[in-house]
Amino acid sequence: MALLFISSEERAAVWIPIFEAAGETIVFGEDAVNDPAEITHLFCWVPPKSLEIYPNLQVVISAGAGVDQMPALPKGIALSRSLDPGISEMVRDWVVMATLMLHRDMPQYLEQARAGEWRSRTPRLVRNTRIGIMGLGRIGRLAARTLSDLGFTVSGWSQSGRPVEGVEVFAQDELNSFLAGANVVVCLLPLTPATQGLMDAEFFAALPKGAALVHAGRGAQLDMYALHAALDSGHIATAMLDVTNPEPLPHDHWAWRHPRVVVTPHMAAETDHEQGALHALAVIRASRAKEPVPGFVDPDKGY
Amino acid sequence: MALLFISSEERAAVWIPIFEAAGETIVFGEDAVNDPAEITHLFCWVPPKSLEIYPNLQVVISAGAGVDQMPALPKGIALSRSLDPGISEMVRDWVVMATLMLHRDMPQYLEQARAGEWRSRTPRLVRNTRIGIMGLGRIGRLAARTLSDLGFTVSGWSQSGRPVEGVEVFAQDELNSFLAGANVVVCLLPLTPATQGLMDAEFFAALPKGAALVHAGRGAQLDMYALHAALDSGHIATAMLDVTNPEPLPHDHWAWRHPRVVVTPHMAAETDHEQGALHALAVIRASRAKEPVPGFVDPDKGY
Repeated sequence: MALLFISSEERAAVWIPIFEAAGETIVFGEDAVNDPAEITHLFCWVPPKSLEIYPNLQVVISAGAGVDQMPALPKGIALSRSLDPGISEMVRDWVVMATLMLHRDMPQYLEQARAGEWRSRTPRLVRNTRIGIMGLGRIGRLAARTLSDLGFTVSGWSQSGRPVEGVEVFAQDELNSFLAGANVVVCLLPLTPATQGLMDAEFFAALPKGAALVHAGRGAQLDMYALHAALDSGHIATAMLDVTNPEPLPHDHWAWRHPRVVVTPHMAAETDHEQGALHALAVIRASRAKEPVPGFVDPDKGY
Repeated sequence: MALLFISSEERAAVWIPIFEAAGETIVFGEDAVNDPAEITHLFCWVPPKSLEIYPNLQVVISAGAGVDQMPALPKGIALSRSLDPGISEMVRDWVVMATLMLHRDMPQYLEQARAGEWRSRTPRLVRNTRIGIMGLGRIGRLAARTLSDLGFTVSGWSQSGRPVEGVEVFAQDELNSFLAGANVVVCLLPLTPATQGLMDAEFFAALPKGAALVHAGRGAQLDMYALHAALDSGHIATAMLDVTNPEPLPHDHWAWRHPRVVVTPHMAAETDHEQGALHALAVIRASRAKEPVPGFVDPDKGY
């Protein structure tokens, strides 16, 4: 068994000693492959086009927490993504920060600060702000629990509709009722055909006037034109975007300069290199033992 | 018994029905006082100069959560401040927001956004950031608990040195050891002669290189020149200030425009008018029953 590693040299420097210590074989780049039959695992952001040359490939491991960049894999090859708990925590921290910033009118205060204007607005209590979280996977549930502990009223919308303690969960066909009750809507959905372009003009119209958007899902879920129109009509008050459409956001894009939008450059989380290497080792060991692959991605659901 | 109310008309509009429903007498402004002997309680930000004309005055109730604006009161007159739990929660929310913003390099990202620059920095895990909270009163303990629940390592520095669960508490004479271990120092101290000017050049030098400041105490505790020098030398990375010296911060002050400083206009909390009125009623009832006054301020400690 050997893992073909297609990623950065910075990451490789962390992986080498970990694979050496574990006694596992790692091959850096396709040029270094001597025997394609030896390759059983592949670590990459997107795989090379011709996977057929690796007859014994069993698992592709995604270099990102999301897998929407991955093409459909040939039958019989599993897809795995890292379950580094640090990723969930980092996204949760960004979401809590962004939610508090919009709850406390930070975009407006930042605009005042640029003008040197000292003027306070009546502060709001968390218990009077309702947060609606779209996507109740590991990260969504963690964010829901933390925001609820802070005193916010939290509801959620998820594909499974599975109950979450302390959260009013809306089912897939109840999106409009869910949105009508959200002062701040937080997107943590995976990118799938069903969520692509979800946040459009109709979506924003279903939110109450003065609502705010926290977006930490995927850029392609958001219609940036519809957001711009909803901001300028006053229906949407503010937005914080860690993902944009397109990415990177062009230097002269309106969203960088809109007084009620804060953009961060897809920085909410990054897989720790060491955790990523340990995940890859766990996948290799599971393959050898013919056990379920850690971080297995269901190809039908896409997450 | 009657309460003399010296405050805004907006607040008066909320207080009138509450005092009417309680059957208590409230007098709006000194011009409306018919019999000075009737006045037993006074609600104000700062009292009028000649309190001697009210021979039966028992308690002055501060319109703010802090009381550093109050002059020393004549002997025999107690000082009370509102213990509205909403105040603690609002300040806690601002502190958590500000701490997360500095932990996640938001001042730097806001500067990049102004330039339309899409460039991410390696995100930090909360467990690797140590927060030092100065002042462990009601608000400080609440902030410590919330930041600890988020996963930060939290230490505290307080006059009493009283233990707080999950927090390493440093005593009054251990300020330098406390500061040496803080990546983000949060000021929630009351303004007293001992804390005036506390955050000076020596204070910043005692923090580790790259530390950040969250200031939600009182403006006069901070030497703004020393902060500016510590920022520009690179020793202090970033600062979020809800209180400044002076206040309001002049329109052309450097702190509004410094790329690694975010200023908000003393907006972290505001006493809810209804809660303030209920506090005043509780004080009046305690006076009548000759019980301890709610929110009593120790004149020696100043809080």
